[in-house]
Parts: sequence; C-alpha cells; structure tokens
Amino acid sequence: MNDLEQARRTFRDELIESGLLVGLGGNGLYAQSADFALIVAGITRLVETTGADGGSSGLSPRRLRFPPVFPRQAFEKTDYLASFPHLTGAVSTFTGDNEEHARMLAGREAGQSWDSWLTPAETMLVPAACHPVYATLAGVLPPGGELIEVAGHCFRHEPAVDPARMQAFQMHEFVRVGSPVQAQDHRTEWIDRAEALLTSLGLDAEAVGANDPFFGRAGRLLASNQRRQNLKTELVVRLYGELDDGTAVASCNYHQDHFGTAFGITLTDGDVAHSACVGFGLERIALALLRTHGLDASAWPTSVRALLSL
Amino acid sequence: MNDLEQARRTFRDELIESGLLVGLGGNGLYAQSADFALIVAGITRLVETTGADGGSSGLSPRRLRFPPVFPRQAFEKTDYLASFPHLTGAVSTFTGDNEEHARMLAGREAGQSWDSWLTPAETMLVPAACHPVYATLAGVLPPGGELIEVAGHCFRHEPAVDPARMQAFQMHEFVRVGSPVQAQDHRTEWIDRAEALLTSLGLDAEAVGANDPFFGRAGRLLASNQRRQNLKTELVVRLYGELDDGTAVASCNYHQDHFGTAFGITLTDGDVAHSACVGFGLERIALALLRTHGLDASAWPTSVRALLSL
Repeated sequence: MNDLEQARRTFRDELIESGLLVGLGGNGLYAQSADFALIVAGITRLVETTGADGGSSGLSPRRLRFPPVFPRQAFEKTDYLASFPHLTGAVSTFTGDNEEHARMLAGREAGQSWDSWLTPAETMLVPAACHPVYATLAGVLPPGGELIEVAGHCFRHEPAVDPARMQAFQMHEFVRVGSPVQAQDHRTEWIDRAEALLTSLGLDAEAVGANDPFFGRAGRLLASNQRRQNLKTELVVRLYGELDDGTAVASCNYHQDHFGTAFGITLTDGDVAHSACVGFGLERIALALLRTHGLDASAWPTSVRALLSL
Repeated sequence: MNDLEQARRTFRDELIESGLLVGLGGNGLYAQSADFALIVAGITRLVETTGADGGSSGLSPRRLRFPPVFPRQAFEKTDYLASFPHLTGAVSTFTGDNEEHARMLAGREAGQSWDSWLTPAETMLVPAACHPVYATLAGVLPPGGELIEVAGHCFRHEPAVDPARMQAFQMHEFVRVGSPVQAQDHRTEWIDRAEALLTSLGLDAEAVGANDPFFGRAGRLLASNQRRQNLKTELVVRLYGELDDGTAVASCNYHQDHFGTAFGITLTDGDVAHSACVGFGLERIALALLRTHGLDASAWPTSVRALLSL
C-alpha cells in the first residue's frame, strides 16, 4: 500500500472510530451520524442559498428532488453504459411464480447464486443527480431556457477504502439547459462561484481541467477529447497534503448538445438545446471540512460554523 | 378499472398537473417539487421532535442516516428474499473487459438485453429504513439496549398508478433493540404516539391490525401468523373516503427475536435481543395531507402549517 492509500485508510478509520460515520460492511458504504448529517445539511443549505439568485441567467432555479432510481428508458438515452459500464448500477427483481421461488430458495440454500432467477426491473440507480431531469424536459424549452436545482443520491460501483469514494453519495446540482451561450456561461460562472463557496468554508480549493472516468480503450480518446475541448473543470481539495493530487468536491461541466440531442430538447427556434451543470459532492465537502478543520465540528472556525448553521 | 383505481389515477394526475410531483416516466417514479419537498421536510422534523424524548425507554435516540443501498451480506441475513422476492431490488454492474464491453454494446445495438453481461454487485436496494441497522448492532448491546432513529430511501418493486405506492420513497423510523418487554413497550406506545402525531396534522388516522405483503402460497401462512400474533399495527388514512380501506402511512412492528437471531445481537445476559420499530412513510403522510387539506399547502389550517414549519 502506498502512502496515499495508507493516509486514506487512516482517515476512514478515524471517521469510524469517532462515530461520524458507521461502516455498513463492504467498502464505500456508510451510515451518517447526526453530527455528519448536520454538516451535510449545512452544506446543502449553503449551496441552495448561493445559487438561489440564478446568477446571470436571470432565472429563479426550479427545485426538484429525485429518488435514487430512475427509469431505464431514460438511462438508455444517455451513453452511460458505453462510457461508464463499470460504475453502473442496474436493478433487477423477482417476477416468477411459487414454483420458481421455491427453486430459487433451494438453490440459494445449496450455495448457488440466485441472481439468475431475477429479471431486469424498469429502473437503474441514478449515476449523477442531473440524469433524471433531462427526460422531463423533452420538447421545446420555455424562452430563456431552464435553470433547475436538483439533488439526490447517486450510485457508482467503485468500492474503495478511500472514504471520499462512497458507492452511494449525495450530489447537489444547478443545471442550465438553453442556448450554447447560456450553457457555457453557466458553467464558466460557476467555476468562480463554486471556488468562492468552498474558499468561504476555509477549504483550499483549486480549479483544474479534468475528465470523466471513461471506460477502457475507447474511453481514453473520450477523456482526451473532453480535456482538449475544456468541457470539465473540477474543484479539488488536497485532503492529504503533498501526498495527493486532490479530491474533486465539485465539478462544472459543459455537455454541449449531448443531453439535448439524446432527449429531444429544443429551443424555441428549433435548435437543439445545450446544457451545463455544476455539481457539489456533499459528503466530499463534509470530508474536506473534517480534514481541514478537524473531526470536532464544534471547534471549527466561527465563520465556517455560521455559514453551515452549526 | 374500478372506482378506487380511478380515484387514485385522478389524484396522481392532479399531483402532476399542479406541479407538486413530476413524473419521471414509468409508474411510481416521481421527482418532488420544492413545495412537496418542503412538506416532507416538515414531516421529518415533526417526527424527529416527537420521538426525541425517547418515550418510556429513557434513552436519547441515536440518529443514523442510511444510503439507499446496503451490503448483500446484511440482506442475506434477513429472510427478505424468501418473504418478499417480488419487492426486491438487486444491484448488478459490469465487471468485464474491453472485449466483453464491445460485445455487450454490439448486442444492445442489435436490440438484445444487456443484463446478461452484468455481474451481481455487493449491494441491494434498502427495502425498509431499519434493515441496514441490524448488522451494525451485532454483538452484545449496552445495558438498556438501543434506541435508534433512522431514515433513508427505500425501494420496493411494485410499479402502480396509485401515487401512494412509489417504487422509491422515504421512511423515518425509531428502532428499539433490547429485551422482549422493551421492544413490546416501544411498539405499543408508538401506536398511540403515531396516531396522536397524525391526528395533530388533521389526519383521520385509524390503528388497524395488519400483515406484511408476504409472497405466494407460503406467504399466506406467514401473513396469517403475523396477524394472529398481533405483531403489526398500521396507522391508515382513507384517502378516497368510502372507496378505500385506508392507506398505511405509519406502521408499528414487533419483530420478536427475528433480527436479533439473524444478526447475532444479544443482551448483556446472553439472551437474544428482541426488536421493534415504528416507521413513518414520509411521502404517504404528505399525500394524505394533500388529500385532506387540499393541494394548496398555503391554504392549510394554521395549526398544521405551524407544526410543519410551513
């Protein structure tokens, strides 16, 4: 194990020993204590408040809260299975009769896997908070486009010791759907706004060009294109000083016409809509605060506690 | 379609037309608007406040917030797959290499199902808010047992037009784990407390003996035993007057030693722990309020608005 992995393991153990998180068994699966959940709630409110003015869009954000699963039909319209198959969470269930049920249980009793008895359900786990929104926007956008504040639990299958790499986590986003310029402006202005928000919490956040973790050989080209076209900027915080290159706690993304084309979202003039989003990783910001200011939130700087209503 | 189904469909359509819920496509999958989420947040706070004194347990509830997935290892220790296979949500993911990925995508392009390329992940969707807690209690309980306040998203595969039957919904519970008498007392006193809470919100709630929706032929016996032993009491509200027998918005359950035995939870004297829980269905209570007081929460009775901090 290298030094960075060791530092992550130590931090995870501290979080569990202090009671802030409770390990549920398996890597990257935790229950949040009251204290941890309070920090997350404070970050949620701060993000909501920060974005409430709608920035230069002149729009009031429309709020939507999503469940952790969404229809396969919507998932199929994205290229998620092509780009991130390894992170995907597909849902299946049992739809058989009494006899099949008895055989499934008998096989399970004999130590066999029972997944072969299951049938794909109509749902997938939500991989990013904004993914369920695009299907609801199919058709012609109102003049000026849409600004939507979304939040929900996301799932990514990447079990890890690193406490910042949870399999299930909460993301809070502002999504802009409209003209290319509107989408680009949203993404650009949120780089500064997100950095200011994080800085106000005493976090040493840095904006860096980034790419999504595309799968496999073909993914290398996609990642390189994304970087070359400057479509993704992450706000990263070094949780372990010189040891690491930084953990992304927020991300500002310009999707071009990716979702507009996939979901048939158009402007009033018939052009395909472009989209952009800023996403805040609520648990990651909480972890960055705990690394920066210490595990005892009651001893955090007064200004930080005030911003988080702690 | 019978009259009750028609009434449910009409209510669902009203919820969507008013913008309180946004259909995500597929039955039982909705995004919550700001107004709906505010009602849910108000109910959450009221439930937390009501249970904060710990009742006759003399304990302060320990708060835990769960993600929507939990380890298969814990799921396997319950009898959920035997009792409720039809409601189960199993998670699978892609763990193959570049070549398998290419073949999966080619098959998908040709209109084939791609689930056969997936591998069971280490997680299941959480079927009831308290299920992830028991694995964390394995071993000897502290003297006096445990009182835990848990909340999280639950999943049940039962797509339906009825807006009260969401596939993903939020449940808030107080779980008591301790001696048989401690568990029984918790369940009994929460029947009255839950009824009082619902009545304070102007809901016409009634406590009725109930059973879980056990699967198949064998399930009939389990359901009948559960009723005969008086292990489950539901607080039901008639959402459609004389048309329906009532929708359960809360439920008080005595599990006997079911989870104690399954997860190896014991009392200080070595006896197996018993458990009980009261669970509040947050969306269902919100829907009952909307049916009872109308779709415009700003016109609800002042006392109800005050209790929900609206």
